[in-house]
Amino acid sequence: MAEITRYGVTTRWSDLVIHRGTAFFVEVPEDSTLDARRQFEQVLHQVDERLKLAKSSRERLLQVLIYLPFEADLKLFNELWDAWVPRGHAPSRACVHAQLAAPGYRVELIITAACDEA
Amino acid sequence: MAEITRYGVTTRWSDLVIHRGTAFFVEVPEDSTLDARRQFEQVLHQVDERLKLAKSSRERLLQVLIYLPFEADLKLFNELWDAWVPRGHAPSRACVHAQLAAPGYRVELIITAACDEA
Amino acid sequence: MAEITRYGVTTRWSDLVIHRGTAFFVEVPEDSTLDARRQFEQVLHQVDERLKLAKSSRERLLQVLIYLPFEADLKLFNELWDAWVPRGHAPSRACVHAQLAAPGYRVELIITAACDEA
Repeated sequence: MAEITRYGVTTRWSDLVIHRGTAFFVEVPEDSTLDARRQFEQVLHQVDERLKLAKSSRERLLQVLIYLPFEADLKLFNELWDAWVPRGHAPSRACVHAQLAAPGYRVELIITAACDEA
Repeated sequence: MAEITRYGVTTRWSDLVIHRGTAFFVEVPEDSTLDARRQFEQVLHQVDERLKLAKSSRERLLQVLIYLPFEADLKLFNELWDAWVPRGHAPSRACVHAQLAAPGYRVELIITAACDEA
Repeated sequence: MAEITRYGVTTRWSDLVIHRGTAFFVEVPEDSTLDARRQFEQVLHQVDERLKLAKSSRERLLQVLIYLPFEADLKLFNELWDAWVPRGHAPSRACVHAQLAAPGYRVELIITAACDEA
């Protein structure tokens, strides 16, 4: 059994890294040309897919760091986030305004989740 | 035994998440109307309370990410931080200037600590 | 056996913190007077040294958060990063533009890596 399992490995990053029952991943919306609402919906859907790949789920999120480059997006993001997080299972969460490395993206999520041993 | 223990669960976040002997939590000062010194004293006190809840302690901090929106606050924050951290037990630490999602707050701390199994 | 092993402990931070086979550390280049290229080369070399201290390696990086204060540095950083990361072993990675607490530094890295039990 490998100590670390990686999915979607590129030269620069892996889409998902699993170590000892903990999953590490980072998401930006796939399509940076979408408007804010659609980017937020898309990125939350991507998180669902990634959690599935990790044999994890929304109920097993541990910590989420949210980078929002546009202050005006916070209300909308929170509205979609609140509807997405399962009641009783919210993660530790921080939200900070900062410019992302890639232009056009309205959000970047750094996620730690519990998952089954790889 | 539950895999994950959560305290202070709201729709948006949990105040404390524990998984396999590791505690994850995020703190901003409770009262954003206080001046910088009182906000910093308050937030460090909150960290103490959260560590107690996690059956952890200042001596068991692993990593702390500090977001300070105001550059001019760094010197004061470090002064209070240095007095608060127990000698010989300092965590890994990063400090970055970034605007916080909520106005008025002078600091946000993202914390990982060792703790007893929940 | 201690639960937590710390290296390079100062009043403010530790250079390296190890807990249950996971290493936590933060790196800025040692010499903030160097140009961007040399700072990036230096900081990646420091990461190698820290990984060695942790009985870890580039192949065992789990997650890296990159703070770049200057947008114009991204292309160069990525070029050096891509050459440094071992093929097939890239970590989860986020890159955000934010001002660092200390002036002159061109990059700050927050790193989580798998390592041998201390």
